[in-house]
Amino acid sequence: MNKMITSSSNSIIKEIKSLHRKKDRWMKRSFFVEGIRAIDDCIKSSANVEYLVYSDMLFEIKGGKELYDTICLENYKLYYISDKLFKEVSDTEKPQGILAVVNYDIKRIDDVLKEKENFIILLDRVQDPGNMGTIIRTADAFGSNGVIVTEGCVDIFNPKTVRSTMGSIFHIPLLYYRSANEAIRDLKNSSIKVITTSLDAKDYCFDVDFRTNFALVIGNEASGVSSEVMAESDLLIKIPMPGDAESLNAAIASSVIMYEVLRQRLKLK
Amino acid sequence: MNKMITSSSNSIIKEIKSLHRKKDRWMKRSFFVEGIRAIDDCIKSSANVEYLVYSDMLFEIKGGKELYDTICLENYKLYYISDKLFKEVSDTEKPQGILAVVNYDIKRIDDVLKEKENFIILLDRVQDPGNMGTIIRTADAFGSNGVIVTEGCVDIFNPKTVRSTMGSIFHIPLLYYRSANEAIRDLKNSSIKVITTSLDAKDYCFDVDFRTNFALVIGNEASGVSSEVMAESDLLIKIPMPGDAESLNAAIASSVIMYEVLRQRLKLK
Repeated sequence: MNKMITSSSNSIIKEIKSLHRKKDRWMKRSFFVEGIRAIDDCIKSSANVEYLVYSDMLFEIKGGKELYDTICLENYKLYYISDKLFKEVSDTEKPQGILAVVNYDIKRIDDVLKEKENFIILLDRVQDPGNMGTIIRTADAFGSNGVIVTEGCVDIFNPKTVRSTMGSIFHIPLLYYRSANEAIRDLKNSSIKVITTSLDAKDYCFDVDFRTNFALVIGNEASGVSSEVMAESDLLIKIPMPGDAESLNAAIASSVIMYEVLRQRLKLK
Repeated sequence: MNKMITSSSNSIIKEIKSLHRKKDRWMKRSFFVEGIRAIDDCIKSSANVEYLVYSDMLFEIKGGKELYDTICLENYKLYYISDKLFKEVSDTEKPQGILAVVNYDIKRIDDVLKEKENFIILLDRVQDPGNMGTIIRTADAFGSNGVIVTEGCVDIFNPKTVRSTMGSIFHIPLLYYRSANEAIRDLKNSSIKVITTSLDAKDYCFDVDFRTNFALVIGNEASGVSSEVMAESDLLIKIPMPGDAESLNAAIASSVIMYEVLRQRLKLK
């Protein structure tokens, strides 16, 4: 199914443009993703692709023709547009001529629980799209069951976050809650402990047994985890920092803990 | 010493503008740093401040007056300029009215060696200023003796890198070598082993004993560590990734290894 669109007032073009806005992404439960690498990840995963658009510039880029052939073999809805129109719908400075609109599903804690060793990431007002994307990528690499985002976070489906997940947005379940406290209520109902990093904690992360069911809370880059969430936490932990830096970047701190969890689960059987 | 500068053709103003360019930063062996938080870090550390400039907008920002008072107590060269002139010399969209020009010192391996458990970071063509800054910040937090940068890396003194180090650029020794191979020669002459992460390595990082003298090589975000450097390495290691992500962000991968080093040194005494 390969149709051509020539007008910028076509409903498909209008829809993609609307998906630049958070409000529309949430209303329509869809977002867009661009570029050869990302689309390749997207069609290899179980992502729910609604349709794709491409333009001639795709064929000027390494791997473009191969990707086009792969897409054609599958039964995707596919629209051909001009390079000029592509630049209008693209979010990047150097568009690659391929874009997919993907429908997403928002899960709750019950949907992602495993029998044991549950490890969920709870993001509390994380504001930087790059940090958010990197945390999702690391959570995917290190085998977390899912990432909870809450209303105070930067939008997970914003193009910059989508890009910095490097495809992991299609692999790892994403959970949505209005607030961290609402998520914590559900976690506790499922007997999932809540663990939070804090510079004032007594326990170092390597002294805590992570071979259990728990959620790790990651707070805002500037102000950390809110005091309400801190109060609701079952355990506060810290990362050793013998050097002179006062703190770590939020994505670094959370990745270090995720690694410690994985290390214990692989090494201390 | 509090002088006023009114003309944009003044030599101080011209010099700060020139420090926006890499060539001038390296020729003059100096760079500039901006903002209340960063200047506070800078004057608390042993940074070699050549002079500071400020403008009225400093006093409109929280902590601005206090910082000004602290600066005045010390014997810094200090210039007062108009807000308009400040915006001309600033690199940020929302300048805070305070900027310092700092002279730097470039060290070689001999300058930073400790008696035992040396742990040096060697950056091989790291290209993203944010990654570079974050790696320096983590290396500082986790107690590395120094970070080697080579010519193929993004400039360490570029304003974005300086910002993302969050002050760590003033704490941790920075070493400079023309190439990674030149640095490796010096490392080996000092009996420092060279360890490189590779997706094809046999050993997991948690199976390697890091209570020794070594340098960790961190490669380019897209292409990794070069094959020459790989060939010169004493050991290749990998990070476990049981999930679906193909790789980790460069700053995340290096931070995870740095944490593992620290964990072993603190826990396995």
